[in-house]
Amino acid sequence: MIIRIAVAYSMGEDGLKQNSHQETIVSAQFCRDPSDPSASLVERLSLMPSASGPLDGLSFTVKDNIDIAGHRTSYGSPAWRDSHPAPNQNALCVDQLLAAGARCNGKVVADEFTYSLDGENPFFGTPVNAKAPDRIPGGSSSGSAASVASGVAEFSIGTDSGGSIRVPASLCGVWGMRPSVHRISEAGVLPFMPSVSTVGVLADRLDHLDKAIRVLLRSGKRPTASLQRILVLSDAMEISDEAVRIEANGALAQISRRTGIEPEPISFGQIIGRDMPLSACNEKALRILQTLEFQNTVGNWIETNAPQMGPAFSMAYENVRGSDRIAALASLDLCERFFEGIQSFITPGTVICFPTTPVIAPLKGTLNTAESALDFYDRTMAMTAFSGVGRLPELSVPILTVDGCPVGFSIAAGHYQDEFLLNAAQEVLG
Amino acid sequence: MIIRIAVAYSMGEDGLKQNSHQETIVSAQFCRDPSDPSASLVERLSLMPSASGPLDGLSFTVKDNIDIAGHRTSYGSPAWRDSHPAPNQNALCVDQLLAAGARCNGKVVADEFTYSLDGENPFFGTPVNAKAPDRIPGGSSSGSAASVASGVAEFSIGTDSGGSIRVPASLCGVWGMRPSVHRISEAGVLPFMPSVSTVGVLADRLDHLDKAIRVLLRSGKRPTASLQRILVLSDAMEISDEAVRIEANGALAQISRRTGIEPEPISFGQIIGRDMPLSACNEKALRILQTLEFQNTVGNWIETNAPQMGPAFSMAYENVRGSDRIAALASLDLCERFFEGIQSFITPGTVICFPTTPVIAPLKGTLNTAESALDFYDRTMAMTAFSGVGRLPELSVPILTVDGCPVGFSIAAGHYQDEFLLNAAQEVLG
Repeated sequence: MIIRIAVAYSMGEDGLKQNSHQETIVSAQFCRDPSDPSASLVERLSLMPSASGPLDGLSFTVKDNIDIAGHRTSYGSPAWRDSHPAPNQNALCVDQLLAAGARCNGKVVADEFTYSLDGENPFFGTPVNAKAPDRIPGGSSSGSAASVASGVAEFSIGTDSGGSIRVPASLCGVWGMRPSVHRISEAGVLPFMPSVSTVGVLADRLDHLDKAIRVLLRSGKRPTASLQRILVLSDAMEISDEAVRIEANGALAQISRRTGIEPEPISFGQIIGRDMPLSACNEKALRILQTLEFQNTVGNWIETNAPQMGPAFSMAYENVRGSDRIAALASLDLCERFFEGIQSFITPGTVICFPTTPVIAPLKGTLNTAESALDFYDRTMAMTAFSGVGRLPELSVPILTVDGCPVGFSIAAGHYQDEFLLNAAQEVLG
Repeated sequence: MIIRIAVAYSMGEDGLKQNSHQETIVSAQFCRDPSDPSASLVERLSLMPSASGPLDGLSFTVKDNIDIAGHRTSYGSPAWRDSHPAPNQNALCVDQLLAAGARCNGKVVADEFTYSLDGENPFFGTPVNAKAPDRIPGGSSSGSAASVASGVAEFSIGTDSGGSIRVPASLCGVWGMRPSVHRISEAGVLPFMPSVSTVGVLADRLDHLDKAIRVLLRSGKRPTASLQRILVLSDAMEISDEAVRIEANGALAQISRRTGIEPEPISFGQIIGRDMPLSACNEKALRILQTLEFQNTVGNWIETNAPQMGPAFSMAYENVRGSDRIAALASLDLCERFFEGIQSFITPGTVICFPTTPVIAPLKGTLNTAESALDFYDRTMAMTAFSGVGRLPELSVPILTVDGCPVGFSIAAGHYQDEFLLNAAQEVLG
């Protein structure tokens, strides 16, 4: 039995609201495999490939909001798991990977209802951040990142709406890519935020990520633009800790030498042609759309079933419940305007770079004051929401190190330019 | 009590399979409002606008797979309705319309699990096709089309994966548009085929459709290309009944005179640069993807709950259940290749025209032989699957008449060119 102090971060439209809360959780070790060094597995499995293909010899894990036939999907919530029967089909993305030659090694921990970026699940535990064991792994694809970092599998499939692939990839020092919205089928993935959610891949190496995500994207031999322009999202650099910024500038200098292309700083305001800070992507737009959609998907179920919820999620959900839908609708329009601005600016041939997260992983237990949680969430989501509103593919590259801890360096490209991004990453990173 | 002969049309990969089946249905009048001339209402409502806006003075109906707070959503299935509690939030699209000044007049009939194109629901009844009362209304947005045609509301929101807005719009003689995939939020819409499903609008007049769908699309003042090129999908003309083709050619001649642009015939094979007939969009690609995704969404629930099902849906579902997922995965790749080919060919400034359906509405009761059902489904879906694989916006225009019955004339545009299509429609139609 553990006592836990939680700080809720609101998704409301007036910026983050703050509450703290103390509650007793019956067990923090709901379903742990003792042989898993990353403590990421909810269930160890060995699903053999259904055919041979480009993923022969590789294995993967599956975030626990993605269906595996015959095994209950928990959504990071024991209450959800216990009230929903096991699916009789794999998610389509799981079948795609098995049919391309990969083996599935298990289901891995997700944050409660995948509604968090920290990776501390009070029921299923906190997967170990192998490269910084005293620090959080990040979430909500916490088990995906941890399982890949510790060698449970070469890659993992996760989901990303507000940063849930990119943040744990950044904080655990693995590769992570969320593709353009809706490029990968979500059949068999629990509905979360239908306009925003994406299925993507985390991996130990770029070639593994590249092979796996091209199977899911059904990339074929799609021709792509050649790399012509490298932008640097200046607001994201400014929001980042100085040490992260210095490291990112070092990476940009290397990329410039390698490609012969001089990176050009650009602000969010310049991209959309309006005087708005990068944080508007999150605070004025995406976070509010996400709250509205979450009310429809998970919210309806919670209202009817009153499930047991962890303290952090309980308070976050109080703010979801209290959101005024009609007042919030303006955020939908703003999301669309931001998308238009980003789409017309980031044309094929252009990539835009920035640190994936503004910080290294916070120490475990340090997000339990309102101030620290706000700082982590507000700054991180200001950066992750950019690709969210832009519906962009974004690749987090594990090449930065601050105080011995990993931070990701992100390369994003235009909407539907996923294959160009993968090709450009090879070129930029050598 | 009625006796019904049903013919199942398979969504399997080897083309349509045929079975016929006879079953007793307890009641064909599950929930009918006797004051509704179109027999389309599942529940009459009067939800007042939450704010004033561009839809002031207009009213709408809602297909019964889209949530209205406090009212159970049936999905066209009494078994589904009775086992799912009422949602506590409206679907986001309903809230958008109410906040733009529109009033909601009720929930309308959908085909069982929205998995049909004929509009004959054995539990909720067959909405009346006001312009051809002895004929089917088409489905699955049968109640949406019927309610608009009979004046229950000026417009209706429906959903379309394989033609479920366009077919009833065509057969009932109303306007209907499915937008580009995922342009409108699906939060609060029952998950059906996540890669394919779209929310869209049916309406009595173009100006009503235009206003309503721009609210949902959050179109703003998005600039669009000007109309430069009018293509005619020649395979769709050939598949159509001769009388429909003659009418469509008449419409094209008028459009040519009005715009000064000469329509250019083009085949599906020319568009994608491969020797393939238009029917491949459905038979080799979209239908199979749809079957796989339906297994994940509705199929999982059916397997666990063994609900009462109507005879036609029962047999269609037998074919869904029997589909081999691994063998079918090649269809996912083909969908992506077709999308690429269509996307690079139908550039901004281009529209492509064809009859929405190859036929007028079949007489009620005539789809009860395998031959007639196959003919209707195979030919219709060959044409509707084109915008499906292309993820295109398509507008069905009620300007053709054959034997006194309506048929739609479709104008489609490139992926995400929804606002261009709306502008072009005004120009083309005068």
